[in-house]
Amino acid sequence: MTDDRSKQSAYAAAGVDIDAANETLARMREAIRSTYTPEVLSDVGSFGGLFSAAAFKDLSDPVLVASTDGVGTKTMVAARLGRWEGIGRDLVNHCINDVLVQGARPLFFLDYVASAVLEPAVTAAVVDGIAAACREAGIALLGGETAEMPGVYKSGQMDVVGTVVGVADRPTLITGERIIAGDAVLALPSSGLHPNGYSLARSALAAFDWTIPRDELGGATIGEALLAMHRSYLPEINALRAADIDIKGLAHITGGGIVENLPRILPEGLGARLASAMWRTPPIFDLIAEAGSVPDDEMRRVFNLGGGMLVVLPAGQAPVALNTLAEDTGATDPVLAGEIVSGEGVVIA
Amino acid sequence: MTDDRSKQSAYAAAGVDIDAANETLARMREAIRSTYTPEVLSDVGSFGGLFSAAAFKDLSDPVLVASTDGVGTKTMVAARLGRWEGIGRDLVNHCINDVLVQGARPLFFLDYVASAVLEPAVTAAVVDGIAAACREAGIALLGGETAEMPGVYKSGQMDVVGTVVGVADRPTLITGERIIAGDAVLALPSSGLHPNGYSLARSALAAFDWTIPRDELGGATIGEALLAMHRSYLPEINALRAADIDIKGLAHITGGGIVENLPRILPEGLGARLASAMWRTPPIFDLIAEAGSVPDDEMRRVFNLGGGMLVVLPAGQAPVALNTLAEDTGATDPVLAGEIVSGEGVVIA
Repeated sequence: MTDDRSKQSAYAAAGVDIDAANETLARMREAIRSTYTPEVLSDVGSFGGLFSAAAFKDLSDPVLVASTDGVGTKTMVAARLGRWEGIGRDLVNHCINDVLVQGARPLFFLDYVASAVLEPAVTAAVVDGIAAACREAGIALLGGETAEMPGVYKSGQMDVVGTVVGVADRPTLITGERIIAGDAVLALPSSGLHPNGYSLARSALAAFDWTIPRDELGGATIGEALLAMHRSYLPEINALRAADIDIKGLAHITGGGIVENLPRILPEGLGARLASAMWRTPPIFDLIAEAGSVPDDEMRRVFNLGGGMLVVLPAGQAPVALNTLAEDTGATDPVLAGEIVSGEGVVIA
Repeated sequence: MTDDRSKQSAYAAAGVDIDAANETLARMREAIRSTYTPEVLSDVGSFGGLFSAAAFKDLSDPVLVASTDGVGTKTMVAARLGRWEGIGRDLVNHCINDVLVQGARPLFFLDYVASAVLEPAVTAAVVDGIAAACREAGIALLGGETAEMPGVYKSGQMDVVGTVVGVADRPTLITGERIIAGDAVLALPSSGLHPNGYSLARSALAAFDWTIPRDELGGATIGEALLAMHRSYLPEINALRAADIDIKGLAHITGGGIVENLPRILPEGLGARLASAMWRTPPIFDLIAEAGSVPDDEMRRVFNLGGGMLVVLPAGQAPVALNTLAEDTGATDPVLAGEIVSGEGVVIA
């Protein structure tokens, strides 16, 4: 059933302090309710979450856009450092970005949090983060589930899975099909890794102390750099839309990097020529490459390397778009990364 | 991103035989596409799945109903026996049942399959089962994700998570609020455990051989009985609706059993008096109780004990409802289980 967090039996069965668990559960319920938009018609604990779609009638041809994802072994970094508050945000933002690229407005989110043993404080920290990111994006945390499976999960480890549902009007779906040679490609900066490549990163950095501030990371620790938030690019995309920028294509750069993800939205016969020097690569990537002797080609296929979201738009609109981003969102460093060209493949010079 | 199954990199990284993996991936893509209803506007591998909501305009007040769930440690039984084909069906049916009870028609499903090491054959078996259950229910498998996390999952283990989204017209939502004393309660029979209580069941039956046919299980093995499919009650509910039965409330009996789940849909001041002798309890439950010396009270709080879904309806319609179920769905043994009474709590005599 949806939202076992309305019940105490799970924690009771786990033998945890019931008073403390009840307090944590009450806090979690409040966090969940704090995300409720006027469309939410159910409360925590119903079998399924209810969300009014009455407003869909105002759209000419409504289309639901849905995506499920996890944050991969970023949870292992959180476990190693005992810092869980960011994982919930990473999960929500990742999912939002995946429906955003189709032109959808995210509506609601459902989560699944599972571990070997339920630790109320850890679960609550994750759910708090999920709720905070939902509030920031203006979407409802409509339902969720927690599961305790000591036989399936390793001790101290956790998996978090999220599903987002959004809506778009079909004529405004972003499909990439109108992209032509000569269009500009903007890069919206990431703050670090997206939830892929964490196995490689952890292995490359295994010999280091993750808790010491490092000059090459601008004073951050490796732990902090690895846990840097997976940003939601919703504010930037909203600003571009408000400025009537013709967004022809969006690529969220996750596993496969720019070289595999940008081609997913390009019409046949088109490629891209990008200049990596145009955008800032967070220093954690250089450290991973160096420490793990990871070849450039592999780095580019695994990581976003600082280009978190690519925006394809008419070249003539690029200056206005960059100004809009700087003014309306305060986003640092969105840059003109390159252009669409005839021919297959993405070349990064 | 949604549906990494469109890419080979994950399997390539896992070092599996690429030709075999490609064949498996192609089969999985075919299975996924076989579920596509006319509303699906995207293909395998898009960032988010697209589902047309144009038909919502025909509803007076459309409401989305969504639920996320897993199958708990039923996956450990599958792992122990090396039989994964049923897990996908269990997952889909469980999720469908959770939105069904609100009066929703399920529309689409998204899955998440994660394990220590991706074994293409196992993943494909799970996805095949998911796709088959989606086809049977007439819903689309709109997206999904596979994840390989050796540091998080124990070797050979797997977690599967699903999200279903359905739609209801608000005036026909099933809320339980019209339930009155004197209403009848029907029980739709389960075929065994729902995805809760597997830890208790596994521990109670740990000393037994799970592969030997047993007289007390009607010739089935313990493994078979534990893996018995979590049924979807969609055909029965559709039949009742087609016969104009006034379904006032539905309770899907999962963790908490009848005693905790039926009260969730009852208006304040109402309880229920049920006679457990009225429905058939699958013999696996007796074996668990005996072998594990599990007290009756605990059995009732953990398991469905054969009453998989409860239907509350006007007493006068009970005979027609029972006839309809027997004729239209061939369902075995739906029974009149008891009635709604004044006063709190559910008493099972």
